[in-house]
Order: sequence, then structure tokens, then C-alpha cells
Amino acid sequence: MFIPVPVQRLIDAFSRLPGIGPKTASRLTFYLLRGGESLGIELAEALNNLQENTGFCSLCFNITLAENDKCEICASSDRDEELLCVVEEPLDVIALEKTGGVKGKYHVLHGALNPIEGIGPDELKIKELIDRIKETNVKELIVATNPSLEGDATAMYIQQQLSGLDLKITRLARGLPVGGDLEYADQGTLLRALDGRQEMD
Amino acid sequence: MFIPVPVQRLIDAFSRLPGIGPKTASRLTFYLLRGGESLGIELAEALNNLQENTGFCSLCFNITLAENDKCEICASSDRDEELLCVVEEPLDVIALEKTGGVKGKYHVLHGALNPIEGIGPDELKIKELIDRIKETNVKELIVATNPSLEGDATAMYIQQQLSGLDLKITRLARGLPVGGDLEYADQGTLLRALDGRQEMD
Repeated sequence: MFIPVPVQRLIDAFSRLPGIGPKTASRLTFYLLRGGESLGIELAEALNNLQENTGFCSLCFNITLAENDKCEICASSDRDEELLCVVEEPLDVIALEKTGGVKGKYHVLHGALNPIEGIGPDELKIKELIDRIKETNVKELIVATNPSLEGDATAMYIQQQLSGLDLKITRLARGLPVGGDLEYADQGTLLRALDGRQEMD
Repeated sequence: MFIPVPVQRLIDAFSRLPGIGPKTASRLTFYLLRGGESLGIELAEALNNLQENTGFCSLCFNITLAENDKCEICASSDRDEELLCVVEEPLDVIALEKTGGVKGKYHVLHGALNPIEGIGPDELKIKELIDRIKETNVKELIVATNPSLEGDATAMYIQQQLSGLDLKITRLARGLPVGGDLEYADQGTLLRALDGRQEMD
């Protein structure tokens, strides 16, 4: 094979990204070689810039500018201080913010409990969450971890840790996705939709 | 939306790559944020390294190390000097090299004729191909441009330019892909497979 070392090196680096296999990595590399020079430089600069200029919010652990101690949401005074929404990842904050449905603030756990992969409570920002709730005036905690085994286990663990506090703990509803088709729904979703059925007005 | 500028910048840069939409770009960026720091740096270095250390072979226009005037294949003395294989892209050289079926050398056009997109013969390395053939001892030219409208047009144009020379010009066979299924083949492929049918020994 006659692939020059710098080309192979970029193919290898791209391949290590999630969801990008060797074929896609080759295609991206040769796209950059074929005239995407300015894009290659922009991408390299954006990568360096990302490492240097971002950090985590000291309160909610969402991603923020390195120069700021707190993220924009935590620093905002327009947010409901009594409502806190706990999520697994920063991307979940973005998804929820797009809906405009969360008026309160967030707390990012950076993962979910997963004993098989060695992720216990100490690997997540759970202790910080408990402390934060005890120190502030939160009245409702929305546990918006993923509707998966790990997300459910994490939600239950958090609930246990907070028992005895005067706090309403809620979990996002499960059911049929909007615009979905009943016949294509999986059994688990359908059971959840039945269990959670609501009376029509 | 509360996405820090350095994060949005990397998402935008990833989005400009072919086949990567905004969702995938977000996923890649947050993967790097979540602990892929060393991968981010490696990727940035590989990108810079690519721009600095690669160039094009002065003879066949394949990608090669910037420090070399000719690529490894052109510099090799093990190759059949009488056989030349012309392809559209450097990736095509890699695909053919993997088969081990081409004993000769290559010539990379860097595209195919496409009048709609304003790509004429002058935008491709066709003049260089003609000159190279006239100056050397090539006996057979395999035109391995893509089996597409553009690839076919390019092959015909090259054939016309070389008419009158004592040179065998061949084109890769069309037909059913190996391991494929007749009933799933498209009409064009099936017609080509019928046209090109061969007597069994």
C-alpha cells in the first residue's frame, strides 16, 4: 500500500472518532487533500481552540468558556431557582433548551451509573448535585436521565440519596413518540404508554 | 441557545465535511469535549501535518510526501513501464492497489469532465497524461475512470485525444458485481452484463 504517512495518520485520527470507520475516515482525509485546505486549517484551529477556551461550569458542570466560572444559564437571573433539571450529558441540555420547556436550571452528571463499565456514583457529579440541592432552595428536581437501564438506575440512586428532603422528584414521561406509529412501537414503549394512559378531558 | 463559541465553531467546521450533518458534528464535538482531549490534539496535529507534509507527484499527480518529487509507485523500478492506468482520484489508486491487479503505473486526473459544474479538460490532468504517453513507452492505457456519465465522457475524450497513436486503450469491464444478486441489479448493469457476456470454456 502506498499511502503517505501524514495521510495515514489523519485517517487513523478520524477513525478514532465515534461512528467513523476507516472508509469514512479515508473519504474525509482525501476530501481535505483535494482542495479543502482552508477547511483543514479551520478544523485544526477549532480543535485547538476548543481545548484551550472551554471548561466546565463550577456549579452545574455544563460546558462553558474557560474564562467564566459559571455557565450562562447558571449566571442568568431569569431562571426559576426552585426548579432543577438533572441530565447525563451537555448535549442533553442543548436538546432541552431547544424545547424551551425547562424554566429552571440544570445539573450535568457527565454519564450514568454503569457498574459493568466501572462507572459508580463517584465517577459522576452526584455528590455535587446532592450538596447543591441541600444548599439551595430547589423545590422540584426533574430527573431527565436517559430512558435506559443506566438512566433509570441513576434516577433511582439519586432519589434514594435525596429521601427525607422536602423536594418533589419527577421523571420525564415515557410513551409513544409524537408523530409515531403505534404498530412500529416496541413492546416496552407500548407497555409504558398503557401504564401511563391519561383520562381525556 | 447556550452553546459556547469555541464549541459552535468546531461543530460548524465538522459540518462542512462531506456526509457530516449538524447532528453528527455536535456528537463528534461533544465526544471530544468529554474526555477525548488527546484525540482532539492528535487530530489537530494530523490536520496541520497533512497540509505541510504532502504534495502531488510531479509525474502521476498522486498524493506523495512533500519532500519527494515523485511518488513511491512512479519511483519504483518494479513496475511495468508499458502499462498505464488512468483514474479520477487518489482514492482510486488505493482501491486498485489493494487488488494487486495493476502491474503498471498510474495517472490521477483529479476529477472527471463535468460541463455543468464547469470542469473541462483544462481543469484535469489530461494534457499531462497525453504528454506523458507521447514521451514514454506505454503500450496499454487502462482507462479506469468511474462507470458514470462523467467517467464515460472523460474516457471518450481521452480516447479521442490519443487517436492515431500506436496504443491499446482499454476500459474496465461492466457487469454484475461479484457476490451480487441478479434480481437486485439495476437495468443498466444488467444490460451491460448481457452485452458483455462471455463464452464459457
